[in-house]
Amino acid sequence: MWKGRFKEDTDSLVLDYTCSLDVDREFALFDIQGSIAHARMLGRQGILEEEEVERIVQGLCEIEKEIKEGTFPWRRELEDVHLNIEYRLTEIIGEVGKKLHTGRSRNDQVALDFRLFVRECMVEWKGELCRLIRVMLHRSQEHMHTLLPGYTHLQPAQPVSLAHHLLAYGQMFRRDVERIEDAMRRVNISPLGAAALAGTTYPLDPYFVARELGMGGTFENSMDAVSDRDFVAEALFVGSLIMVHLSRLCEEIILWSNPCFGFVTLPDAFATGSSIMPQKKNPDVAELMRGKSARTFGNLISLLTLLKGLPLAYNRDMQEDKPPFMDTHKQVSLSLKLMARFMDSVVFNSSQMQKSLKRGFLNATELADYLVSKGIPFREAHHITGEVVRYAEERGLSLEGLELDELRRFSEAISEDVYEVLDLKRAVERRSSPGGTSPQCVLAQIRSLEEWLEKKGEK
Amino acid sequence: MWKGRFKEDTDSLVLDYTCSLDVDREFALFDIQGSIAHARMLGRQGILEEEEVERIVQGLCEIEKEIKEGTFPWRRELEDVHLNIEYRLTEIIGEVGKKLHTGRSRNDQVALDFRLFVRECMVEWKGELCRLIRVMLHRSQEHMHTLLPGYTHLQPAQPVSLAHHLLAYGQMFRRDVERIEDAMRRVNISPLGAAALAGTTYPLDPYFVARELGMGGTFENSMDAVSDRDFVAEALFVGSLIMVHLSRLCEEIILWSNPCFGFVTLPDAFATGSSIMPQKKNPDVAELMRGKSARTFGNLISLLTLLKGLPLAYNRDMQEDKPPFMDTHKQVSLSLKLMARFMDSVVFNSSQMQKSLKRGFLNATELADYLVSKGIPFREAHHITGEVVRYAEERGLSLEGLELDELRRFSEAISEDVYEVLDLKRAVERRSSPGGTSPQCVLAQIRSLEEWLEKKGEK
Amino acid sequence: MWKGRFKEDTDSLVLDYTCSLDVDREFALFDIQGSIAHARMLGRQGILEEEEVERIVQGLCEIEKEIKEGTFPWRRELEDVHLNIEYRLTEIIGEVGKKLHTGRSRNDQVALDFRLFVRECMVEWKGELCRLIRVMLHRSQEHMHTLLPGYTHLQPAQPVSLAHHLLAYGQMFRRDVERIEDAMRRVNISPLGAAALAGTTYPLDPYFVARELGMGGTFENSMDAVSDRDFVAEALFVGSLIMVHLSRLCEEIILWSNPCFGFVTLPDAFATGSSIMPQKKNPDVAELMRGKSARTFGNLISLLTLLKGLPLAYNRDMQEDKPPFMDTHKQVSLSLKLMARFMDSVVFNSSQMQKSLKRGFLNATELADYLVSKGIPFREAHHITGEVVRYAEERGLSLEGLELDELRRFSEAISEDVYEVLDLKRAVERRSSPGGTSPQCVLAQIRSLEEWLEKKGEK
Amino acid sequence: MWKGRFKEDTDSLVLDYTCSLDVDREFALFDIQGSIAHARMLGRQGILEEEEVERIVQGLCEIEKEIKEGTFPWRRELEDVHLNIEYRLTEIIGEVGKKLHTGRSRNDQVALDFRLFVRECMVEWKGELCRLIRVMLHRSQEHMHTLLPGYTHLQPAQPVSLAHHLLAYGQMFRRDVERIEDAMRRVNISPLGAAALAGTTYPLDPYFVARELGMGGTFENSMDAVSDRDFVAEALFVGSLIMVHLSRLCEEIILWSNPCFGFVTLPDAFATGSSIMPQKKNPDVAELMRGKSARTFGNLISLLTLLKGLPLAYNRDMQEDKPPFMDTHKQVSLSLKLMARFMDSVVFNSSQMQKSLKRGFLNATELADYLVSKGIPFREAHHITGEVVRYAEERGLSLEGLELDELRRFSEAISEDVYEVLDLKRAVERRSSPGGTSPQCVLAQIRSLEEWLEKKGEK
Repeated sequence: MWKGRFKEDTDSLVLDYTCSLDVDREFALFDIQGSIAHARMLGRQGILEEEEVERIVQGLCEIEKEIKEGTFPWRRELEDVHLNIEYRLTEIIGEVGKKLHTGRSRNDQVALDFRLFVRECMVEWKGELCRLIRVMLHRSQEHMHTLLPGYTHLQPAQPVSLAHHLLAYGQMFRRDVERIEDAMRRVNISPLGAAALAGTTYPLDPYFVARELGMGGTFENSMDAVSDRDFVAEALFVGSLIMVHLSRLCEEIILWSNPCFGFVTLPDAFATGSSIMPQKKNPDVAELMRGKSARTFGNLISLLTLLKGLPLAYNRDMQEDKPPFMDTHKQVSLSLKLMARFMDSVVFNSSQMQKSLKRGFLNATELADYLVSKGIPFREAHHITGEVVRYAEERGLSLEGLELDELRRFSEAISEDVYEVLDLKRAVERRSSPGGTSPQCVLAQIRSLEEWLEKKGEK
Repeated sequence: MWKGRFKEDTDSLVLDYTCSLDVDREFALFDIQGSIAHARMLGRQGILEEEEVERIVQGLCEIEKEIKEGTFPWRRELEDVHLNIEYRLTEIIGEVGKKLHTGRSRNDQVALDFRLFVRECMVEWKGELCRLIRVMLHRSQEHMHTLLPGYTHLQPAQPVSLAHHLLAYGQMFRRDVERIEDAMRRVNISPLGAAALAGTTYPLDPYFVARELGMGGTFENSMDAVSDRDFVAEALFVGSLIMVHLSRLCEEIILWSNPCFGFVTLPDAFATGSSIMPQKKNPDVAELMRGKSARTFGNLISLLTLLKGLPLAYNRDMQEDKPPFMDTHKQVSLSLKLMARFMDSVVFNSSQMQKSLKRGFLNATELADYLVSKGIPFREAHHITGEVVRYAEERGLSLEGLELDELRRFSEAISEDVYEVLDLKRAVERRSSPGGTSPQCVLAQIRSLEEWLEKKGEK
Repeated sequence: MWKGRFKEDTDSLVLDYTCSLDVDREFALFDIQGSIAHARMLGRQGILEEEEVERIVQGLCEIEKEIKEGTFPWRRELEDVHLNIEYRLTEIIGEVGKKLHTGRSRNDQVALDFRLFVRECMVEWKGELCRLIRVMLHRSQEHMHTLLPGYTHLQPAQPVSLAHHLLAYGQMFRRDVERIEDAMRRVNISPLGAAALAGTTYPLDPYFVARELGMGGTFENSMDAVSDRDFVAEALFVGSLIMVHLSRLCEEIILWSNPCFGFVTLPDAFATGSSIMPQKKNPDVAELMRGKSARTFGNLISLLTLLKGLPLAYNRDMQEDKPPFMDTHKQVSLSLKLMARFMDSVVFNSSQMQKSLKRGFLNATELADYLVSKGIPFREAHHITGEVVRYAEERGLSLEGLELDELRRFSEAISEDVYEVLDLKRAVERRSSPGGTSPQCVLAQIRSLEEWLEKKGEK
Repeated sequence: MWKGRFKEDTDSLVLDYTCSLDVDREFALFDIQGSIAHARMLGRQGILEEEEVERIVQGLCEIEKEIKEGTFPWRRELEDVHLNIEYRLTEIIGEVGKKLHTGRSRNDQVALDFRLFVRECMVEWKGELCRLIRVMLHRSQEHMHTLLPGYTHLQPAQPVSLAHHLLAYGQMFRRDVERIEDAMRRVNISPLGAAALAGTTYPLDPYFVARELGMGGTFENSMDAVSDRDFVAEALFVGSLIMVHLSRLCEEIILWSNPCFGFVTLPDAFATGSSIMPQKKNPDVAELMRGKSARTFGNLISLLTLLKGLPLAYNRDMQEDKPPFMDTHKQVSLSLKLMARFMDSVVFNSSQMQKSLKRGFLNATELADYLVSKGIPFREAHHITGEVVRYAEERGLSLEGLELDELRRFSEAISEDVYEVLDLKRAVERRSSPGGTSPQCVLAQIRSLEEWLEKKGEK
């Protein structure tokens, strides 16, 4: 289609190297959608006859059918999805098909297709995130009174409820949704009408096209429109953060299913065994998901590095913008789906959690606070408690396992009522400042998240 | 401050390895700001006496003064900025200073300080971006009629105005501002009250603290509050994209100041020479800035990798979240500042641009369109033009440099009026679809961007 | 194969998520090669009967044939390439096929397959690099006397020969070969015999297996053997640096084919056009290759991030080690192949280079040196020359374009012989210190590289 | 020093942005070392008088003293370390100081300094790695008979000795040393004599300089010499892999010091506490080190991204090559040092390891092998054992905790001798194939590593 000034044919290895069909084939339906909007606009602006528009639209619908049914005759020598569809259109409806490309270039066309594709992917991510939040809410409601050690530095810190722990992830996924919504405002902009780079000589109406495609706005500068890939970078970043959050949850699933912890039992349907070791039941899904997060970071860095130092406007390097996004999309959407199913069916072993609450002096802060309530300055109370901890540790005992007179050796201020304070359930109940782990605070969190979800549902 | 259960002192190399003072010292004023808000809240909630609050606030103000004057006695053995300030407070106001830490832990405290720091940095970025946009607008207004080759694949494509070219960057920087505003809504959330990880037993009022600090909201889950670093990742990403945009502009400055292009002359004040080669005048600033973009990508990937697979809640790995942000902040803020000054004073050589418009057949599309207007189908017109281009190229001529009868050898449809069409100024004027490069479109762009800037100014 | 302890079947989405067949299918022939070596060793150690070994080897050869002919019945439900082949083996030769897995686990098996695969890929890279070096040598020999501006900061610095410029890349590619050889010593180690993680209870002979497969050594620690992926990281790094070098060459090709430079003319077979702009001839291959370098960096960072913080020994995250390497291999091998063909056929325009030598005062250093030779201290000579440059620049002249009396206005020391010194050809000839750009130095370089290549050929 | 052609002074913000003194100041002693070698060579080649050389060398020695004593008058306005030293030299010894720069440029000078710096750092890394390997050997010798669960997927797999586990790290660190040695051959090459980019007109002897500095070779192409930063990339990669290995060990230390595992007790000197929670003893060092690994990956990706697409020869972007290396060096050298001290003093709790051996059916493979020895095909034996595991698990028992008649319900082939087979100590002893976990294999590993270390020591 561009051979006028060339004498020789393209080298066959070059064809292979530059052909983008394996990747942009996935844009086919968006390409058609965009072309229909473009054709209608050309008609409305009097650039094409109404009858021409109708034939083009019909031809495109036929192609859409062929693609969905798998009968479309893809041709690698036609470089990309755009030329494949244009060529086929002319095969079906004749010369008028060539008029579709009026006032358009592949530079603005591919930018449009990619934006529609990213939009659809992010809508899917959002849906899956909301589903996952719902599962977390559901499991939290079951476990508002299940206690486990809250860790910092992976060392026992203070007891928390399992609900509170799970809802921390609810907050992360909620932020992910918000980031999707923010990025969407910049993704959902139509670049059509920028043409090759400088705009066109035809009286186009880019706003009409944008409205037809449900997009929130149009480009303001044609050179920017064809060379802007910020929207891909944003989507890759949002996807990477989703995977960061999933990887953290995966790490906990892996730890918790190790028998030393034993906090969860993997559902058989979500674990795999070993062909050698008959006892094995491995948290493969969580491991793979943790591993796949690394891949999405690689995709993000690829795109940023790709864009660095590119002069205006379109450069062919940009063809490499698609594989990273497509890979990230695959990992993110599948991982979210799987995590929702996994969290829905994983078994929490509250008795194992209970056991582990006895290790690590999770009530040491309570003892220190108790001493403070008896009039001892906090720094001193902290020091006394530290010594009690050391004493108990050397004897393999818990704080509540010490006799009163043993405790009193460290401070006369301690009396019988200390044992009530050392009770972990009470410790959790007392943490009732906003956002804390006490049951009523957790309930408030659940309600807030439910309301937020409901609002999303209305949109 | 935590030695009760320890028998041995910390290894000196360990102290060195874990001390964060070199980095978090920069948080000092935010730490004080947060502490004042916290103290006031404790007073309001009846946890501290009003008089205690007053003494604490006065002590903190004194410390602020010491820090600003450089007389604050920093102590490395006190690990971090928080303990340094707390210790100093007690030196100044006595035992009551120790009450400041009531209902707070370093885990929520550092998260607050960091959020205030990131907020301030991003406000600075936004200001610099707006300043830079203003410079771009200013230079665009000067150069609405200066033409240069618009490139795709760094090959001459179609002529554009320099204003249009510069405004493409205006659009990028505008999106950067929008991303800052979006991220800000998640940065500007107060985590204070989450304490170590589980909330506290004190009747705190996190909303009051948030309001005092001008923050838009408070945390909903205490475990999330102390382990969330999404806000840093977002800021690092936003900063990386800013640097991507700057790196693209830098690439063009470097190309344009090479004498083969010669489109710009570097101001002496923004170039450096060579100690060996007397003729040298190097675009060092642009090169360094392009190089520094790489660094900000490295910072982003560091943080994502750091967070990957971390179990809840706080882990010490997170101490490493600060150096990447601080470095990115330094590069972004300084680069934006410098670019605004550079763009303000760079000299555009329109005569060199004019010369280069003669190379590369930038009016080939015009010729093809001309043939179409004479009734020749576009594909054929494209092919004919391609052959004309080849013919002219072999003779070292431009299209408009061909005689009419030479042109007519390729198509009888060509007549005298073709030379008007081949005029590049007209070609630019004709590209008047919305967002195009024609002067009136560029003017519309300028107005739109000015209005947007004005709105920002009102905020 | 591992269902004894499971009650439920695996979730179908989990099967999809965890199945590695799409990727490790490429290991099939290496898997067979490794299995044959393993079977022979089992026979030699008396663990299998000789007759059993023969049946196994024959069965594996049959499978090899099926795979090559595309008739092998792949089964997704069998998870990976290993189980597919083992299952098929038993179909073909009966129960004895199951004995093949004696003393082996998929953990050491996949490590072996991957090492054999990486070895083959790196051998291919090395071959392509040597081919490319040969092309560079060939083009250098043609252009020992073609001069062009040597740039630093992309500003004219000193004249160099094109041969010298091209040979700089020869040096880079030579280092790439050396890095491949270094990495190979660590890739080419057999892990077979490590079994699941702890070694086996069978009297295996890992050294025999290694020798059979032409490997340079065996593992020393079974836990390390199954969890070590350093060899992949090294290969990814070596591949990334190859792409860095190619990206630099690509950048120059792109610059040089812009008409402002015009140093090269793209062969038609290696350029593509535009469907809109008839004059276009774009350096797509170089742009895409530059873009693809970004992708290989992403792959490297993915693997490092994947491995970070993984406890011993094998973890399922490691399944994600293959996609990045396979992608990098594809990019590296194809890019090297293409670059050799491109460099072989690209046309260098010495007249355009000649023209550009007149811009940018490339002989300013010569003038300064000339003044030094006349007894003027270098710093002063530098300063005088700088002023001459400014004077000439303001008049749009070159140094040799100034009249003698103009020159003498800046220094009385200048006389008629200065014009000889200003001659660029002489300037190049004078740079004859070892490694310099003078023709005889370049010849020495060429000979040295040829000898090195010859030695490689002997290996 | 380069102001001849400039009319205006450099912008002060530009000075700040481009000044490299904060970073390259660390090169000072290497710069002097290189200058001394250069001066001696100039003398030997008759370019300088012997007496001039002597004065220059004396002046440089004086400057070295000033720098070591902290009295050197650094001047920011002199841009970098090179100009600072040259300027000072002239202050001290007069005009002859200016002759030092003959036949040299900052482009080859900085490349030399950086290579000397990297060489010294890598020598340090190597020394620390050997020290750490020695500690691992020492601890392994203590724990050849200490058993713990060997994990795959962090699930109990087969028992291993602690020595075997620790020695896996020994192998990783050994490969790190080998990579350093490989990279060193490319680092330790002198670029001096390449001058600005094209070589010089002076009869230099680069080989002499290289020998003086103990370098293994000289550059072959002057353009490559000033633009090659492969050696930095290699060093950053080698450092990143070291940090990967350390991060894996850190992960295990963190897991093992959680009380659910309890495999190690942190020495007080290597742990820190909490200012709030008195019981806390956190593995901060391991956490920070794990976090710091992320940083070194960021540094690597920065450099690769920096170099991507840079045209020849030197570009100012390259100034940004130093901060990433300096940061990685700091992290790597300190981390190695600290890890050796940590591993030397960490307390292994064999009784806790013993306890955990009872969980997770680590002897299931033994039972399956036992059934095979009784004539049952492996797949069936695996299945039977899987069912026994499920039975035992449901009852909270270990395999050896089942009565003989319970076991026989699953297979009649089981008899009294099964209990001997189920003994974990025996299981470890039986894994005696080369590289396995049996004591004699571990001993062989230790000897091999000791011999290797000894050889390194001789070098």
